[in-house]
Amino acid sequence: MSLNLASDNIAPAHPAVMEALARVNSGPATPYGKDDATARVEKLLAEIFEREVGVFLVTTGTAANALALAQMTPPWGAALAHHEAHVMHDECGAPEFFTNGAKMVGVAGEDGRISAAALADILSKNFWTPPTHVRPASITLSQATEVGTVYRSDHVAELSSIARERGMRIHMDGARFANAVASTRETPAALTWKAGVEALSLGFTKNGAMSAEAVVLFAPDLIDGLVERRKRGGHLWSKGRFIAAQALGLLENGLWLELAARANAQAARLTLGLAARSLNLAFPVEANEVFVWLPAEIHQGLHRQGSHYYVWDSDCVTAARAGRPGDVLARLICSWATPDEEVDAFLSAIDNAAPAKRASRSPGTPLF
Amino acid sequence: MSLNLASDNIAPAHPAVMEALARVNSGPATPYGKDDATARVEKLLAEIFEREVGVFLVTTGTAANALALAQMTPPWGAALAHHEAHVMHDECGAPEFFTNGAKMVGVAGEDGRISAAALADILSKNFWTPPTHVRPASITLSQATEVGTVYRSDHVAELSSIARERGMRIHMDGARFANAVASTRETPAALTWKAGVEALSLGFTKNGAMSAEAVVLFAPDLIDGLVERRKRGGHLWSKGRFIAAQALGLLENGLWLELAARANAQAARLTLGLAARSLNLAFPVEANEVFVWLPAEIHQGLHRQGSHYYVWDSDCVTAARAGRPGDVLARLICSWATPDEEVDAFLSAIDNAAPAKRASRSPGTPLF
Amino acid sequence: MSLNLASDNIAPAHPAVMEALARVNSGPATPYGKDDATARVEKLLAEIFEREVGVFLVTTGTAANALALAQMTPPWGAALAHHEAHVMHDECGAPEFFTNGAKMVGVAGEDGRISAAALADILSKNFWTPPTHVRPASITLSQATEVGTVYRSDHVAELSSIARERGMRIHMDGARFANAVASTRETPAALTWKAGVEALSLGFTKNGAMSAEAVVLFAPDLIDGLVERRKRGGHLWSKGRFIAAQALGLLENGLWLELAARANAQAARLTLGLAARSLNLAFPVEANEVFVWLPAEIHQGLHRQGSHYYVWDSDCVTAARAGRPGDVLARLICSWATPDEEVDAFLSAIDNAAPAKRASRSPGTPLF
Amino acid sequence: MSLNLASDNIAPAHPAVMEALARVNSGPATPYGKDDATARVEKLLAEIFEREVGVFLVTTGTAANALALAQMTPPWGAALAHHEAHVMHDECGAPEFFTNGAKMVGVAGEDGRISAAALADILSKNFWTPPTHVRPASITLSQATEVGTVYRSDHVAELSSIARERGMRIHMDGARFANAVASTRETPAALTWKAGVEALSLGFTKNGAMSAEAVVLFAPDLIDGLVERRKRGGHLWSKGRFIAAQALGLLENGLWLELAARANAQAARLTLGLAARSLNLAFPVEANEVFVWLPAEIHQGLHRQGSHYYVWDSDCVTAARAGRPGDVLARLICSWATPDEEVDAFLSAIDNAAPAKRASRSPGTPLF
Repeated sequence: MSLNLASDNIAPAHPAVMEALARVNSGPATPYGKDDATARVEKLLAEIFEREVGVFLVTTGTAANALALAQMTPPWGAALAHHEAHVMHDECGAPEFFTNGAKMVGVAGEDGRISAAALADILSKNFWTPPTHVRPASITLSQATEVGTVYRSDHVAELSSIARERGMRIHMDGARFANAVASTRETPAALTWKAGVEALSLGFTKNGAMSAEAVVLFAPDLIDGLVERRKRGGHLWSKGRFIAAQALGLLENGLWLELAARANAQAARLTLGLAARSLNLAFPVEANEVFVWLPAEIHQGLHRQGSHYYVWDSDCVTAARAGRPGDVLARLICSWATPDEEVDAFLSAIDNAAPAKRASRSPGTPLF
Repeated sequence: MSLNLASDNIAPAHPAVMEALARVNSGPATPYGKDDATARVEKLLAEIFEREVGVFLVTTGTAANALALAQMTPPWGAALAHHEAHVMHDECGAPEFFTNGAKMVGVAGEDGRISAAALADILSKNFWTPPTHVRPASITLSQATEVGTVYRSDHVAELSSIARERGMRIHMDGARFANAVASTRETPAALTWKAGVEALSLGFTKNGAMSAEAVVLFAPDLIDGLVERRKRGGHLWSKGRFIAAQALGLLENGLWLELAARANAQAARLTLGLAARSLNLAFPVEANEVFVWLPAEIHQGLHRQGSHYYVWDSDCVTAARAGRPGDVLARLICSWATPDEEVDAFLSAIDNAAPAKRASRSPGTPLF
Repeated sequence: MSLNLASDNIAPAHPAVMEALARVNSGPATPYGKDDATARVEKLLAEIFEREVGVFLVTTGTAANALALAQMTPPWGAALAHHEAHVMHDECGAPEFFTNGAKMVGVAGEDGRISAAALADILSKNFWTPPTHVRPASITLSQATEVGTVYRSDHVAELSSIARERGMRIHMDGARFANAVASTRETPAALTWKAGVEALSLGFTKNGAMSAEAVVLFAPDLIDGLVERRKRGGHLWSKGRFIAAQALGLLENGLWLELAARANAQAARLTLGLAARSLNLAFPVEANEVFVWLPAEIHQGLHRQGSHYYVWDSDCVTAARAGRPGDVLARLICSWATPDEEVDAFLSAIDNAAPAKRASRSPGTPLF
Repeated sequence: MSLNLASDNIAPAHPAVMEALARVNSGPATPYGKDDATARVEKLLAEIFEREVGVFLVTTGTAANALALAQMTPPWGAALAHHEAHVMHDECGAPEFFTNGAKMVGVAGEDGRISAAALADILSKNFWTPPTHVRPASITLSQATEVGTVYRSDHVAELSSIARERGMRIHMDGARFANAVASTRETPAALTWKAGVEALSLGFTKNGAMSAEAVVLFAPDLIDGLVERRKRGGHLWSKGRFIAAQALGLLENGLWLELAARANAQAARLTLGLAARSLNLAFPVEANEVFVWLPAEIHQGLHRQGSHYYVWDSDCVTAARAGRPGDVLARLICSWATPDEEVDAFLSAIDNAAPAKRASRSPGTPLF
């Protein structure tokens, strides 16, 4: 049994995705996104979001985010994001490249979520005076966040409202949007356009696709120029049916939410096991990611047994969940493909790592 | 029977590609191109090109070309290409975007191939004086060309030599490289690095993949920075095995050349049929594309019967192959998936279009 | 006596410019273009153009052109210009840099002026299909042109009208706008916004300044973002009064037109002298530039005597003005500072170069 | 008497600068920086820096910084700067524009100076893994800093050494370099290349010019491409003598250091006056800028009397110098042109603002 909780992008594609690819793989199809499968995706997304939407399929979250932000942010604009967001640090400057040099500006907030107070505060600073300073042009919310928490619709609406008052546009990086929907049990519409979101990067890759993402636009004025941006970014597939089919395989019959719920459930299973072992969480587990403080000897023991996960670093842990000196912050991610056996094997590996030395859990530490 | 000769990108993926996808679709894989399938592609390409190569997988030819040219061309450089090349006009400015504003400069040449004299001539012009003018930094050769002809290795070497004398770098846009190899019966090595090519965009998409291309580097100094360019361009797949598998499906057992030869053979079958109907070619047919002058009534008749192809426009037709007044230049492309029946049906549709009015072929017109 | 007709940018600044600089050089002034001198320039330009204008001072024509074009041309747009225009070749890709990679597309036309037929023709080509192709977004007219001719207002209006029908915006590169006004005796308004021009790069440098240019906007929707573009381009002077004063020195009391008329007159004096020597012009002399075909021995003789001018290369000479084999095309530019003596000395130098060998002027060759 | 301490960029140009302009303003000069005055600047700077240097004249500090950083920082690089540096916030994204989207990354440090510990710390973080993350490519030190302090050569050397170990390049933003030289009494060489600096933006504008800055390169490999960057950025003056003359006016006879010393002395005079009034400084006064905590009633009183200065905001004040609740942080800048009378009038205005209410100075607060 592999012990690989490094990411949900190590998972294969779901069989339904492969079947959908096989179904469209017959005869000629009009190229460049004019095929029937793409049209079907557009129709399904309109149903799922309960309104007309603009849909632009690409294959990476980096591309989806950078394209969407470029539609919203002039070169002399600032795109605000949580200071630990993926889009800030982990895309090698893709937003800067696609916007032609806009600034990514970090905003604080506990548990990976932008705080409304911090957003209001930064917007009130005196570094937004044109033309010396860049303009606050857009905000991007990661759903789920970089530390596995989710935004509920009222929080999204609160941030959107503050941003909109300043003429800013609102983007959601939904690389794990399905996990957030499954977690909050709110509708896709409630979590997005009804709460002010104007463009969503909707991720299928981690959800069970090979590699597929959609830029979903709710604001019609954001459409102009996006087909050209996608093309000159090298993101327009000639055989577009093969991105679309991946989305179809997941969207039809609600499989996308079923798979996300499964990934979330495995994270919950893992969380319970960690709690039973008195290991403390750094963040509430609200989707498919678990951040746990591991005493060094356990971390080393897990490593010796061949388990895979990332050691993390975060400045947005609340005081109540701070680690102890020497603790390692481990990021553990479950996917739709993570079997019960792997979760259980990982927990056993913890037991094997340093069974006798476990300190008991301090009573006041929050579990979720 | 469909009558669709619009492009080789309307074809589905070859079954071997789908099988290769299925083979890699099992269990976890290291993300971001560190997987086994990607390593296998790198090994196969080294064998095929008979030397060490740098391999960077992406999914569109536009991305491959723009990334390769950006590695070779500073923002204040010029990238020279045939004035009708795809990369000049059909990528919505992708090279300009990835290079941060380099100039694409067109060079003349009959039959879609850059002429050595025209290249030498343009490089001798007085518009290359720094810093007023941009620097001639790179040249890109389309193999096969935009009008379906191919470069033989001696022609590539001649152009490379002229360019290298000026300190320029040499790129080959091999969206249809397989067709060129199958056509020339020269080795991949002979057509590329042995003739001076330093980077190749190697296309799998038209060759039978869903969507896969490789930037193949022969010059080690071009490697630095390319992983970052690919990432910030949004072209690094997390589940990299699924690009690699497509390449594997084609490269293993030489299927890529078999499929290219099949496409070329269908173009030859079509050419013979056109010749038998005294229809004149605008360009020699050397790969899988046929450019034929259609009298207007035939064009209209084909349109009425539901056939699909592009009407073309070219300034590089030789005098001997010029069309007659009123003729429409039709581009007809065969792919690995074009059946004999479709070629024959297309020829029958010509017969149905205006059977009585066909003028006989003028004796001196070249056939190939 | 110097024999330097290389350019009008070799001239010093006019004394009135120096005096204007001295006048503003006293006490504190609000920085970043909020000073009184800048306000006065804006007021004067509004008077000169007989309407409200947006004024953005910079110090180079390259900056003015690139900024103006960037306001009009999205990254996926094309800016059309005469194929020999300065902005196409002589600004090291500044338009590409400021637009983030738009395409400069050359349009033909005799005597350096875009031909209406050529413009209509290129716009009717099939390479403007989105998103494969870029959008025709803007057109830029050089006034005077690169070969010293000028556009009259009806010609500007004709081109503007064709462009506007396609949704394009209209820019005028007026590095030598003053010379064109002085030459045509049309008003600044007539030559610009009344003829459809929406933004003008108004050059003061060649006209007698040290280094000053204004982007003059007639279309209010082009204003948004330009202050930021100028700032992040590094073109916002803190001590803005010193650009403004240069413009004031020229604009007040109509000195700008007086100096331009003087430069034009010296070119006319030179032209008469060349005609008297049976030397043929390549282009009509309509402003302060003279393009003359020099037999090789005269060119060499001038060189020996230390005269300075550029040898030119042009594809837009009309058949009636073509040079003879071996002729060198010399570009001779007069400025406001070129004295009669220098013109006369240059003509004497021609006489000294090869006096006995002058062929007589063929009767049918046009003089102007 | 004006009460304008808003900036040193509100000052006029020094008479010596105007005289130098007049001196070069005669007869033709070779354009584009090939003139004699430019050559003389290059020679003088080589003497001043005691070595061969590359010199590239431009007219704004924004341009100088952005060009220099672009030579050092690839699009996928990070340029590190103090988190309150001018180049981070006040140039509207110029570095991002010229680098094609590199990241500006802030580093902490008290009193506006990057701390060696903070630099080492940020470089040890796990967000520099290629290709997900950008590369730490360059560091830029503001001399004097944004809060009026200066780096001594040993501090520069310490930071350079840390950066160089990581393969980073070292830039100095010397908008107020003259003030720093005058303050530290170290040589220009000691403060720059001898301490590891590879490129310097040397400011003349605030020092007494109209608008002139030089990119001074100490590392020969940084030269290639800079002439083109300057040209396509629109920063190459045709009449280059007029930038050069400004520099000459200041550099000859050491006037630049004399003027800087005068500005520094006026700041010291102001500081003494503030101390006598028991007003506390937020930062040590080491050049020509004074940051003082003003009780609100004094701030309002000064405002009523028509004085001009910026209200500042800083996170790098040391604990010992923190303001009291309600205090306003005022930035007061003296220039070479600030007369004694203006300093004294400003101090009198403080006395007039709220004379009776002044709290006495707490004994332990540092004065310098």
